Amino acid sequence: MLIVMKADATDEDVAHVVRVVTELGYKAHTLPGANRTAIGVTGNQGAVDATRFETLPGVAEAIRVTKPYKLISLDLKPEKTIVRVGDAAIGGDELALIAGPCAIESRAQAFAIAETVRRSGARFFRGGAYKPRTSPYAFQGLGEEGLRILADVREAYGLKIVTEALDEHGVDLVERYGDVLQLGARNMQNFSLLRRAGRSPLPVLLKRGLAATLDEWLLAAEYIMAEGNYNVILCERGIRTFAQHTRNTLDLAAIPAVRRVSHLPVVIDPSHGTGKNYMVTPLARAGVATGADGLIIEVHDQPERALSDGAQALTLAEYEQLVSEVRAIHEVIAPAPVG
Amino acid sequence: MLIVMKADATDEDVAHVVRVVTELGYKAHTLPGANRTAIGVTGNQGAVDATRFETLPGVAEAIRVTKPYKLISLDLKPEKTIVRVGDAAIGGDELALIAGPCAIESRAQAFAIAETVRRSGARFFRGGAYKPRTSPYAFQGLGEEGLRILADVREAYGLKIVTEALDEHGVDLVERYGDVLQLGARNMQNFSLLRRAGRSPLPVLLKRGLAATLDEWLLAAEYIMAEGNYNVILCERGIRTFAQHTRNTLDLAAIPAVRRVSHLPVVIDPSHGTGKNYMVTPLARAGVATGADGLIIEVHDQPERALSDGAQALTLAEYEQLVSEVRAIHEVIAPAPVG
Amino acid sequence: MLIVMKADATDEDVAHVVRVVTELGYKAHTLPGANRTAIGVTGNQGAVDATRFETLPGVAEAIRVTKPYKLISLDLKPEKTIVRVGDAAIGGDELALIAGPCAIESRAQAFAIAETVRRSGARFFRGGAYKPRTSPYAFQGLGEEGLRILADVREAYGLKIVTEALDEHGVDLVERYGDVLQLGARNMQNFSLLRRAGRSPLPVLLKRGLAATLDEWLLAAEYIMAEGNYNVILCERGIRTFAQHTRNTLDLAAIPAVRRVSHLPVVIDPSHGTGKNYMVTPLARAGVATGADGLIIEVHDQPERALSDGAQALTLAEYEQLVSEVRAIHEVIAPAPVG
Amino acid sequence: MLIVMKADATDEDVAHVVRVVTELGYKAHTLPGANRTAIGVTGNQGAVDATRFETLPGVAEAIRVTKPYKLISLDLKPEKTIVRVGDAAIGGDELALIAGPCAIESRAQAFAIAETVRRSGARFFRGGAYKPRTSPYAFQGLGEEGLRILADVREAYGLKIVTEALDEHGVDLVERYGDVLQLGARNMQNFSLLRRAGRSPLPVLLKRGLAATLDEWLLAAEYIMAEGNYNVILCERGIRTFAQHTRNTLDLAAIPAVRRVSHLPVVIDPSHGTGKNYMVTPLARAGVATGADGLIIEVHDQPERALSDGAQALTLAEYEQLVSEVRAIHEVIAPAPVG
Repeated sequence: MLIVMKADATDEDVAHVVRVVTELGYKAHTLPGANRTAIGVTGNQGAVDATRFETLPGVAEAIRVTKPYKLISLDLKPEKTIVRVGDAAIGGDELALIAGPCAIESRAQAFAIAETVRRSGARFFRGGAYKPRTSPYAFQGLGEEGLRILADVREAYGLKIVTEALDEHGVDLVERYGDVLQLGARNMQNFSLLRRAGRSPLPVLLKRGLAATLDEWLLAAEYIMAEGNYNVILCERGIRTFAQHTRNTLDLAAIPAVRRVSHLPVVIDPSHGTGKNYMVTPLARAGVATGADGLIIEVHDQPERALSDGAQALTLAEYEQLVSEVRAIHEVIAPAPVG
Repeated sequence: MLIVMKADATDEDVAHVVRVVTELGYKAHTLPGANRTAIGVTGNQGAVDATRFETLPGVAEAIRVTKPYKLISLDLKPEKTIVRVGDAAIGGDELALIAGPCAIESRAQAFAIAETVRRSGARFFRGGAYKPRTSPYAFQGLGEEGLRILADVREAYGLKIVTEALDEHGVDLVERYGDVLQLGARNMQNFSLLRRAGRSPLPVLLKRGLAATLDEWLLAAEYIMAEGNYNVILCERGIRTFAQHTRNTLDLAAIPAVRRVSHLPVVIDPSHGTGKNYMVTPLARAGVATGADGLIIEVHDQPERALSDGAQALTLAEYEQLVSEVRAIHEVIAPAPVG
Repeated sequence: MLIVMKADATDEDVAHVVRVVTELGYKAHTLPGANRTAIGVTGNQGAVDATRFETLPGVAEAIRVTKPYKLISLDLKPEKTIVRVGDAAIGGDELALIAGPCAIESRAQAFAIAETVRRSGARFFRGGAYKPRTSPYAFQGLGEEGLRILADVREAYGLKIVTEALDEHGVDLVERYGDVLQLGARNMQNFSLLRRAGRSPLPVLLKRGLAATLDEWLLAAEYIMAEGNYNVILCERGIRTFAQHTRNTLDLAAIPAVRRVSHLPVVIDPSHGTGKNYMVTPLARAGVATGADGLIIEVHDQPERALSDGAQALTLAEYEQLVSEVRAIHEVIAPAPVG
Repeated sequence: MLIVMKADATDEDVAHVVRVVTELGYKAHTLPGANRTAIGVTGNQGAVDATRFETLPGVAEAIRVTKPYKLISLDLKPEKTIVRVGDAAIGGDELALIAGPCAIESRAQAFAIAETVRRSGARFFRGGAYKPRTSPYAFQGLGEEGLRILADVREAYGLKIVTEALDEHGVDLVERYGDVLQLGARNMQNFSLLRRAGRSPLPVLLKRGLAATLDEWLLAAEYIMAEGNYNVILCERGIRTFAQHTRNTLDLAAIPAVRRVSHLPVVIDPSHGTGKNYMVTPLARAGVATGADGLIIEVHDQPERALSDGAQALTLAEYEQLVSEVRAIHEVIAPAPVG
């Protein structure tokens, strides 16, 4: 159920509808838009009687939602969501650049990279303190020590910290040290973790699973939003196909596909999306040309010594070149219209 | 590192090696075999000096392991693992049958199905109390109430309970009520959950992820074993491909592929592996013919009313027919040799 | 359009309907069944008026076909097609065994293998004279000389020859020397070749394309049948997926999927379907257990010296063991009912 | 074997080497480059003795090629190939635009679209006279009549005609009426057709197969070149994956992957690559941003009435908008360096 308020509905009207929804045992999700506020209703088993709401003051209409998702949809919120992170944003007119090493390896490494990231004009620094590794014997990240280094990077450079949590305990820690909570591809359908992220005050960057359909990805975002956290950023990072010339196949058509149904911003990860250093910049250009809201890029001061994913990391110089190229493309792209 | 003991090594010798390994800050995994005991060494950063062990009493040789996995491998344990669950087993000469509904919906439903499952000679009852659902608005299982029903089924019918946990808290509950801990395809690389399962006293049935390579699947098992739980059962449940005539594509070649490198037993899930009722029995026959150690089958007393996955559930009569067909095939298959 | 004749319709009635169809500029496909004859009508642009036919003598009903295929369907012919090749058959009660080398390399090689194939009780000998090779520089087959060797094998051992044509000229040659025309996976949508095969007197063994959906595969068969050749054998030989432990992923669920809509027989190719010698026998067992009408198996007297696909060829001894195992399973499988 | 001539080698020197190669029973492929000429040697069984060539006048070195391909490789020709079609070109500095309807349906349709295509500045007109259709009952193209219309379009608008042949007879016809011979995805491994195209005077636009690996695609080009036709244009048109929000998944990473090993130009087909009208323009932008040498776009004056692939065709207005957007991006992209 989706309750659309009239353009001239008052805050009072909205609050009243929310109260009625809540009293019925459902959950109300208020998403204000440019011209009107809509209220998503979740938590119902089976259909909700629309007429019950349509007579309330300020209500324009109550719409039954037949698609599997509600809160992520343009029906609920026709304008694109701009996720604000302090004075930075993802989803607005400016291209969001998120850059940094795959894993935080040391204070020196993090600061060396952050220096360049800051100089490039990026507003976000990425870096993993807890790494999901295929093998139990591979480097698993510095843990809380890595998070402390990230917090220091923020202090020193004013960059917003984007970092991954692998479990609920990790979310607690990221909330303490970071700015944007990243959920990885392998956890895209870790529903307990999605729910926990939905109760976090931090925006969530949700990577698409390796074999996730569009609907599964959007419904993973819906899990987060259904708990009340509406600041979700989708991240396309490549899917698993038969192709072997890349680590993953970057599915850029996901951008227009998401735009067509959802108001959530989408960023592209050409580093994991290709797995090969020399492909990152061309595919980053492609992502921006397609209309992505941002990029997340792996950069390393010494890629050949990286403890994880060195093959796909850019050098500092390559990264600076990438930024200049994608900026040039972003300028000639008219803002992609929503819908 | 893998330390192979001589055939005539004493318990004392083994204990001594374990002590030395532990004192070096590593972890020792003792896996006794038919002819000799082997000790896997994990927890080392970089190579371990083999000569340090080869001079210890009872040691035949110390082998550096170059493959990404150690504990799952035939190098460590050349005989197939038989996972014992009370007086039942998976991996032995008898075909292990695990049957029951997708989700526990009510006591009546569970008992009606369990009656037939017991009569078929199956030793294991499956049923979900916590269901991983793509949509946050779909039926999520009865939770602990479902687990209590499962425990009562065990009491009433002597069936061993196989049930899924979605998170660490769920593992606590399954340990209280169940016999075999199931980890689902979507959680195959939920590394925190794998580690928790590795500290559980229960055997773990580990489903292959939708897009997991053989190595990723085996390394997920390695995560569990690296924590000290060596009772892992692998479950092939279909992979995601372009094919649309099935929900997933059942990859039966995974059975010989696993056999070639690992001692762990493998069971087949033709219900999720096809997603269509009329395909379950032929593919169950195929699984057994390929050499699977068991089957996990969704059965429902009223499939058309099932709250989840009704399209793939067998009726009670269809299930009984399946059991008789797969038993006939199992009899004519010579026990598949390991290696 | 599908015209179903009454059970007591005379040959005269059928001939009359065919005449009317033909006069309208359409093509009539008469497929006699156990209880009634059906006549498929193709060649129409848009819908055909059913009433025009329903008043003709002997016509039970005229049905508009809404599915993309007509002639392959159970609607047209509810009984499974038995493709007869001289005194042998594919699709009947007996399991059809087609065995031989990937490529014919020499007379000595072909005869050495044929000797064993014959002794195993197989009725069909396979062997490529024209090989579709990924590289232009790889061994491309002996050409017509290979076909002559095959014809001699038939003469010497009474085996029916199954061999591939790569183009229309190749079909001419296979018609001269062989018994069953094989069309390979890479040519499954070579529509000109399909049409040429549709005008051949030989039965056609049609391999599924590497990335073919069920519908595409069935429609490829429909291309052949639409030209008037109704003796089509479908062959599942594995699809391309992300999995790397096999050359292809054998999709055994294709068997019940085909059975549900089509009367055409299905055979399984576990050699290409796995690409690995040690997997061929377990997957052959699986194919038969699923209900396949036959198997096509690569055998070589000296696999390590094979000029193509040696890694997947069985030795003569392994092949004999396979035959005994699949025969045992075939005996315990009740004939899979059609539909 | 690859024979690299010295920078100052004379035509006489080159001709002499070719003569020696030919006399040995091999085939010589002379590919002149900016700084030196290289001669590829094919047709040899096993290794060729390099010393035999290194002593010939003008020869710098003779290199054994260990990769499966030779003629497509940068080793043979380090500069990107520019395929010239009359006064137009693909692979040069200018972005090659190939636009037109999926199928030629009528003279009126073709001319209406060609008018717009010409006005957009595109130099190439595409349109199918022979259509590869999944169903034998779908519109198969106008045949030779369609080719005549295409020839008239060329006459009227000066556009070069790009059109598909489905078989060897079709190649004869395209040679009579067209300028660039298109080979479709389903025929990418129709080796007889590739060889025939290799003996054509026309440049060949070779679409990547739905499930083709990079090597298979490059080797299909090698088949054409091995026959002596070096004017091959590669076309990425999407691969088949599990994703269902598009008809195919456009694999733009194929561009840098091809660049790294081959001198052949690459164009992108965002129409088949997405299958959805609203995705074509964003993905066309992406293709150009990645560094494609051109685009092939489906345009229709009345997409809702198209006899094939209407869902992915752009309207004339949408096409003009696309051209202006991709031109803007092409301008800001520095020419992608080869290698």
